[in-house]
Amino acid sequence: MLTEMEVARYRKKALQLYAEANIVIAEEEKQKIEIADFGFGKFGAVGLSVLIYVNTKRCCAKELAMLPGQTCPEHLHPSLSKTKPGKEETFRCRWGKVYLHVPGPETKNPKTLPPSGFEAGYTVWREIELKPGEQYTLTPDTLHWFQAGPDGAVVSEFSTSSTDEQDVFTDPAIVRATRITK
Amino acid sequence: MLTEMEVARYRKKALQLYAEANIVIAEEEKQKIEIADFGFGKFGAVGLSVLIYVNTKRCCAKELAMLPGQTCPEHLHPSLSKTKPGKEETFRCRWGKVYLHVPGPETKNPKTLPPSGFEAGYTVWREIELKPGEQYTLTPDTLHWFQAGPDGAVVSEFSTSSTDEQDVFTDPAIVRATRITK
Repeated sequence: MLTEMEVARYRKKALQLYAEANIVIAEEEKQKIEIADFGFGKFGAVGLSVLIYVNTKRCCAKELAMLPGQTCPEHLHPSLSKTKPGKEETFRCRWGKVYLHVPGPETKNPKTLPPSGFEAGYTVWREIELKPGEQYTLTPDTLHWFQAGPDGAVVSEFSTSSTDEQDVFTDPAIVRATRITK
Repeated sequence: MLTEMEVARYRKKALQLYAEANIVIAEEEKQKIEIADFGFGKFGAVGLSVLIYVNTKRCCAKELAMLPGQTCPEHLHPSLSKTKPGKEETFRCRWGKVYLHVPGPETKNPKTLPPSGFEAGYTVWREIELKPGEQYTLTPDTLHWFQAGPDGAVVSEFSTSSTDEQDVFTDPAIVRATRITK
């Protein structure tokens, strides 16, 4: 849960990150930036700022902004049936650094760890560092989480249609839709 | 038809445009920039530089670079059947200006005209100006052409799977695959 003032403040921070990355955001888009706290109300540690450029039945593009060290918690995009595969997505780092974690051999001496106190919600340990100009494509049904480096990050996401409400999070305490109070 | 030297020179120009737009391109991507001349060998007038970030069976993202006044000629992305709709695409201007032309009421006093000598290949006259941060989504089977403004343009394209070889161009002289000679 976040207050309206907190949402406004975090939107400003997201806009600062987009500006650092020299990404132009239209005036009418600024109020549409989603401030996702995943139900914990600890946005600086567990959270994500999301600007959806386009999301149709067929494809989607978003610009993600991440505060320094901020984590988007572990989840996957489930296939609903053989003819309804889950979301496929490519993360392309535009600015800063982001550390993506996926299934596979555990990375020794990883640069990032799950946010303190939330460790039970993290189970995949192959760490992929993405610097500006680097990208990684995730197939559906693949667990993943990601954390920004020390300066934060701006990440473009190119994907099939996005249905965030179907995401399956490892931590059962997570609520995907942020509740906002006065 | 272009020579290898011309392709190398135009790739450099595309990289300059990406740099102007502060878009970071990985070293290994630089040689993958497609220099499309549409068969005319007049790249400065009719052409497009295309970097495909990702193109799977389901979705695609590209970064387009356009020289000042350069035109991508009129075409559409055809639906092949009811269950195989054509490509849907969103153009988002990142830097410079681009003028997109689509079916609809003819724009009076348009900012751009078809390239001189190629007028017969152009039939849609509703002009949409896209400045940085502005975007437009095209449904399949929609004729469109676009021309960069006086400084050139960098345009992100978010779309369903891209199958350039199926594109239908208004001008029958167009050859989509660029021939490159020594």
